[in-house]
Amino acid sequence: MWLDEISWNEQGLIPAIAQDAKSGEILMLAWMNQEALTRTAREGRAVYWSRSRNRLWYKGEESGHVQRVSEIRLDCDNDVLLLRVEQIGEIACHTGRRSCFYKRLDGEAWISVDPVIKDPAAIYGKNK
Amino acid sequence: MWLDEISWNEQGLIPAIAQDAKSGEILMLAWMNQEALTRTAREGRAVYWSRSRNRLWYKGEESGHVQRVSEIRLDCDNDVLLLRVEQIGEIACHTGRRSCFYKRLDGEAWISVDPVIKDPAAIYGKNK
Repeated sequence: MWLDEISWNEQGLIPAIAQDAKSGEILMLAWMNQEALTRTAREGRAVYWSRSRNRLWYKGEESGHVQRVSEIRLDCDNDVLLLRVEQIGEIACHTGRRSCFYKRLDGEAWISVDPVIKDPAAIYGKNK
Repeated sequence: MWLDEISWNEQGLIPAIAQDAKSGEILMLAWMNQEALTRTAREGRAVYWSRSRNRLWYKGEESGHVQRVSEIRLDCDNDVLLLRVEQIGEIACHTGRRSCFYKRLDGEAWISVDPVIKDPAAIYGKNK
């Protein structure tokens, strides 16, 4: 069974990298449990496990910024997933940016280098 | 202090995604502790923390397949790193493949879809 080949961590989770299928941009990394991965594979949209809210997290459930999944990959150690996605609405990050990886190490400081595309207040109806 | 802004996990680690700086390919994901990240930033080559060997792991120390790091990024939650790298020798995976993410979910099976570029026995001097 394909789910049994995965090396889940002690919490029953595996990290999943979301990459834009066309541009190759890395959009985010989130976590999945067995249920999240099963739903992602079945429904073709990214479903994660929210560690902070302790529940299944349908990506885009609030923002509408769904990730359509075209491919699911697994690494050599069976403990990391890679999702090739189409990011609906262009924005993956809850800060209103394209990618969550918007801070770059510059000498000894993290500098925000990517623009906010849309105010989170406009995305979520409140400031997040 | 830039290291203090990072949300290390309970083991004092953070996942680091290595991405080819030119092509955008995702090569691997490994883990770093504070010492590994400090050395990576200082030396400009990827140094990870090997969870299996429980020691610092200079990527390429055995294979020669060093990763030169051109950029280090941090995500919105401060708990995932992204390295933009040049992969010396083209091969990032210990199986002799370009990327560790060579298994694709096809229906209900993981299928190896990327070729072995070089026999691991030739890389490491023994089968790994």
